[in-house]
Amino acid sequence: MSVTTPESTPGPTPESTPGSVPESTSGPTAVTVIGLGNLGQVLARTFLDQGHAVTVWNRSQDKADDLVARGATRAATPADAIRASDLVVICVLDYTTVRDLLTPAAGDLAGRVVVNVTSGIPDPARELGAWITDSGAAYVDGAVYAIPQTIGTPEAFVLYSGDEKAFGRHRALLEPLGTAEFVGTDAGLAAVHDVALLSGMYGMFAGFFQTVAVSGSAGIGAARVTELLVRWLQEAIAALPAFAAEIDAGDYRTQTSNLDINAVGLANILAATRAQGVGVELLTPLHALFEQQVSAGHGAESLARTIESLR
Amino acid sequence: MSVTTPESTPGPTPESTPGSVPESTSGPTAVTVIGLGNLGQVLARTFLDQGHAVTVWNRSQDKADDLVARGATRAATPADAIRASDLVVICVLDYTTVRDLLTPAAGDLAGRVVVNVTSGIPDPARELGAWITDSGAAYVDGAVYAIPQTIGTPEAFVLYSGDEKAFGRHRALLEPLGTAEFVGTDAGLAAVHDVALLSGMYGMFAGFFQTVAVSGSAGIGAARVTELLVRWLQEAIAALPAFAAEIDAGDYRTQTSNLDINAVGLANILAATRAQGVGVELLTPLHALFEQQVSAGHGAESLARTIESLR
Repeated sequence: MSVTTPESTPGPTPESTPGSVPESTSGPTAVTVIGLGNLGQVLARTFLDQGHAVTVWNRSQDKADDLVARGATRAATPADAIRASDLVVICVLDYTTVRDLLTPAAGDLAGRVVVNVTSGIPDPARELGAWITDSGAAYVDGAVYAIPQTIGTPEAFVLYSGDEKAFGRHRALLEPLGTAEFVGTDAGLAAVHDVALLSGMYGMFAGFFQTVAVSGSAGIGAARVTELLVRWLQEAIAALPAFAAEIDAGDYRTQTSNLDINAVGLANILAATRAQGVGVELLTPLHALFEQQVSAGHGAESLARTIESLR
Repeated sequence: MSVTTPESTPGPTPESTPGSVPESTSGPTAVTVIGLGNLGQVLARTFLDQGHAVTVWNRSQDKADDLVARGATRAATPADAIRASDLVVICVLDYTTVRDLLTPAAGDLAGRVVVNVTSGIPDPARELGAWITDSGAAYVDGAVYAIPQTIGTPEAFVLYSGDEKAFGRHRALLEPLGTAEFVGTDAGLAAVHDVALLSGMYGMFAGFFQTVAVSGSAGIGAARVTELLVRWLQEAIAALPAFAAEIDAGDYRTQTSNLDINAVGLANILAATRAQGVGVELLTPLHALFEQQVSAGHGAESLARTIESLR
């Protein structure tokens, strides 16, 4: 399925929006954060640290206590929180929750910018964006790439899609959350990236579980083998851009490690894993894709060709 | 299944071995390389660069041409190659091939050190090690962690197991191939690490294919999304040591991202992936393990607990 890219929805202009700041500056501004889970807490704290006037709301009110002690204003209702700022950042469980929270304040949305960093799914992101746009607000969907150790640091990055003008106006304010990057005017595009990049992460996690289970069966501790795995993955990651170039070019000729070699290699690994008494269900499907490509006559071509079996 | 750790097999002493060098020096020594594929070529070239007297053999003799031009000696037979040096490094397709090549020279093996870096499978490595030890030679099994871009550089690393004294005697000579690390006297241990670490790599590759297929379905190029994926994986890798500590401690209590959240998150990702028309077979088994742990009542515990479903 292809994703369509609707035209950018024009956001409110700086002149017409109370509390807005000129494009790409980060002067003190009013910002509301709705949803104070782990991520929401860090977002609100970062805005406070930058000297902004922060209003917060969370269903369990005590989650705001620490932020209020640091200078945030606690709103009594989501509607109050929305009315407090031109920029509203939302970080809750799912899209349904976002909609439920915004509905009582729908009449107050006009002219504001809603940045939603609720975990991304493309179609609900588009539907929410359309509803918010219909209410007269600008919609920006964001996907945050951070683990607890990196959140709010320059290592973290955030992808945004949707209203490009609204994003540009608040970019400097958003930048301290993690390097900000705009990926397209289709509100669903940040979520497409989210699905793609989290899939990559889960694949790595699956590999990690396999590594620790195999070595654990031989009495090697998880911490010890993970040191080696981290080192090896940091090295092996360097192979990915070369694979990507092959995929973009559709040219899978290779002199190095072809599908034949990898199909045999992975079969040996699965057999040795079974011999250690460890489950192989996480990697068996990858081997099946290798075999599918080999059977189709592509054994001498690059491992990167595996992708052709997925799409 | 647990791996037994036999006593270290004493190797020949420096005094009794012609051509050997004192422990941990890298003075010029005679070294033979058998098998001149991509890896064997780099190994032989690295030894030449270090000033050693290198003898090479390969089934297709022309693979040795470049090395001979650089100063290597071409042996006519594997037996000749083995007789030329105290240290014999073997890098061929599989263990059967190693055995076939060594058999005609079995009578000449006594007192030598055989370092076998043929891709590792634990039980065949142990069987080969026992046969070589019975022939009076010392056996060291090695697993090389390098991609074409890093091979022979300090980023690469090599794990060795088997005869610890023989390894120690040649460590300085082996070090330029990649940081050398001895993981145990069981000859199969380097191969156990190999199965474990390559499994981790294949998991990462599976995730990469998924990332590129999902984003490709939305018109995002592989090179572009791979830039983001590399950045995200380098960040997400930092989560692995914390998971490993939980696994070693058997304590899966967590305040951050638990199994409930990840089971729902991954289910959403799989549904969105299907909606993009992309196959989900690579990540479905991981979701099944999450669900298995959730069903067993561990939903509030750490993602790291997934490993308990594998062993």
